[in-house]
Amino acid sequence: MSDRILKGLLHRNDRKIVLLVIDGLGGLPPEKGGKTELESARTPHLDRLAAEAECGLHLPVGYGITPGSAPGHLALFGYQPTEYPVGRGVVAAMGIAFPMQAGDVAVRINFATRDEQGRIIDRRAGRIPTETCARLCEVLGAVSIPGVEVFVRPVKDYRAVAIFRGAGLSAQVEDTDPQATGVPAYDPQPIAAEGARTAEAAKEFIRQAMTLLEDQKSANAILMRGFAELPVIPSMGERFGLRPAALAVYPDYRGVSRLVGMEVIEGLANLSDQAEALKQYWDRYDFFFVHHKYADSRGEDGDFAAKVAEIEKVDAFVPAVMDRCPDVLIVTGDHSTPAVMRAHSYHPIPFLIHGHRTRPDEVTEFGERPCARGMWGIIPGAVLIQLALAYADKLQKFGA
Amino acid sequence: MSDRILKGLLHRNDRKIVLLVIDGLGGLPPEKGGKTELESARTPHLDRLAAEAECGLHLPVGYGITPGSAPGHLALFGYQPTEYPVGRGVVAAMGIAFPMQAGDVAVRINFATRDEQGRIIDRRAGRIPTETCARLCEVLGAVSIPGVEVFVRPVKDYRAVAIFRGAGLSAQVEDTDPQATGVPAYDPQPIAAEGARTAEAAKEFIRQAMTLLEDQKSANAILMRGFAELPVIPSMGERFGLRPAALAVYPDYRGVSRLVGMEVIEGLANLSDQAEALKQYWDRYDFFFVHHKYADSRGEDGDFAAKVAEIEKVDAFVPAVMDRCPDVLIVTGDHSTPAVMRAHSYHPIPFLIHGHRTRPDEVTEFGERPCARGMWGIIPGAVLIQLALAYADKLQKFGA
Repeated sequence: MSDRILKGLLHRNDRKIVLLVIDGLGGLPPEKGGKTELESARTPHLDRLAAEAECGLHLPVGYGITPGSAPGHLALFGYQPTEYPVGRGVVAAMGIAFPMQAGDVAVRINFATRDEQGRIIDRRAGRIPTETCARLCEVLGAVSIPGVEVFVRPVKDYRAVAIFRGAGLSAQVEDTDPQATGVPAYDPQPIAAEGARTAEAAKEFIRQAMTLLEDQKSANAILMRGFAELPVIPSMGERFGLRPAALAVYPDYRGVSRLVGMEVIEGLANLSDQAEALKQYWDRYDFFFVHHKYADSRGEDGDFAAKVAEIEKVDAFVPAVMDRCPDVLIVTGDHSTPAVMRAHSYHPIPFLIHGHRTRPDEVTEFGERPCARGMWGIIPGAVLIQLALAYADKLQKFGA
Repeated sequence: MSDRILKGLLHRNDRKIVLLVIDGLGGLPPEKGGKTELESARTPHLDRLAAEAECGLHLPVGYGITPGSAPGHLALFGYQPTEYPVGRGVVAAMGIAFPMQAGDVAVRINFATRDEQGRIIDRRAGRIPTETCARLCEVLGAVSIPGVEVFVRPVKDYRAVAIFRGAGLSAQVEDTDPQATGVPAYDPQPIAAEGARTAEAAKEFIRQAMTLLEDQKSANAILMRGFAELPVIPSMGERFGLRPAALAVYPDYRGVSRLVGMEVIEGLANLSDQAEALKQYWDRYDFFFVHHKYADSRGEDGDFAAKVAEIEKVDAFVPAVMDRCPDVLIVTGDHSTPAVMRAHSYHPIPFLIHGHRTRPDEVTEFGERPCARGMWGIIPGAVLIQLALAYADKLQKFGA
């Protein structure tokens, strides 16, 4: 469906859509013949919704493709991720609400530890706390590069972001993170000719940073990942006629939300805050993105039981959503993170769409296998928003 | 998924993918309420794989489209067939490893029998043996056309191929095969203006051939099918980072394999040779295309029971594949050939994908109806390769 055609069909109303994202929801059985995390979890509320809802599986990017966090979410927000590439640096900058300008290049920074030979021995600098990170970012504020302004801002724990501003910059620069320990970080190298100036600036930044961090015990090095320019993305308001709000605890997800023009509700620390915010802001918006991170985190830890517990926490949160009587509720994930793989994966993700006008299928339980029997089969993640719009009566008839 | 994006995600490793193709696998019940060929076959090994695998149906070309052999296989190799049209002549030339050059036009030739009135009475010349075919091709070597070089080469039985080389040739020429007996062969006619010169050359070729074959009892005529130029197809190595090998008995399938840059293992006569080759070449490649022709042949004969028997032969071959412990095994067909239709058909084809990381669905039996309940539903044939790459850890994450 082209943007132009869809736009012509939009019908604004005050019906409410809630998109509840359990990050990394999809999983795998830990042993042959076993159940996945979601199938193992006790989820009475989600099961009841599934029984009343339309179910299926979705692929955020494509067949066999493992989505990063940003592409996984962009798909759920209605943007085919291959058409809207978003680099890690931009996601980080948006996450902390840094006001990026056109032409800026952002890059994610990890504080790291190197030994005397310059080899990286800890890619996370002993997971320094956010306060230390913030202090070190101020220290790095002393870096000075002719013709290039640099902003260094803390994100969370050992993670920060640097934004380069100046003429002739480009994101065509390789990561410096070697993705392994026992080896030195790479020098910033241009991927294409237009990246040369940025690579030089990054190199100079790193050189000065090494000096400024010299006396640090753990955070005496930095690694750069995901040089990125601000992409041009039409807002959800423009494309879908929605007034969207993001209720997300983690900075990166607030970042992706900002990219598509959501208003980000600040200061939320957990599901209970999110429930409260839903209540408080219910009248002000008509699309609510509610994000729970920890199913993914526990999946990445390889902790099957803890991931199950996180899914159960979201199940217990469902009544707080239903108390609001949303016109449409979608529950799904942005990608799979099977605990047995300790990583994002390419497996399709279960979803349910619940609303006044959804036509129930024969699925009575929320899980990978039940949803594989759901009426929608396997669909691209980016079309879910169209279903939500339809069930919220926000789309008019096509043609006479 | 664009080629460029996919290419950026490729991660080469030594994980092994086996694509086991049962030609013409899909079928139909011979009577109402009956079972298909595959559902009738006793296939304990395939059933066990299906129970552990992800199942579905695939469409090689599109909804309602009956695939020829080349498009059916191109889809399985990851090439959307409508984007890579390959004529019959090229498939035949590739099948016998004829070194075609850009600008050449190849056409499949069938030796045939005509009566005194010039009517075709046997479109296969009494199925003359390959040796006779080879001898007659040498006879046709005497044909001489000013400005056009012609190579005539035997393929198998009554089938040969002619390659026209010279300036200004084009594949825009109609078949001469009337696809019926009791009528004369057609004259070669250009489909478009640029085919005029080739049509003239083909006409002259046929005129001289008729004289050279005059004294033959059965093979006294030739029919031409599938004028074709060499298409430009990026290799599987280039597109998917694979080192692919083809283990196929029939020339045409070796031909399609060569077109996508597979190395063809020569001298294989049956499944037992193919099992041996799999063992012998296991370390040298990471993608193995194993082809079994005769399910299709028996389907085209209209022999339901014999097609069932061929499927059972492949089932008995499965342990030889599993002994190699492939990381990913796909079992499917290139198209359906229901015995009741005696021809290729448009019916979707069952498939299973088996691997360490596949998420089992609820299918416990390999068949058309069970696979229709599989998690993948009905997907384009050309995306199966992406799933194989994913499950073999040959694709990196997309985006941050």
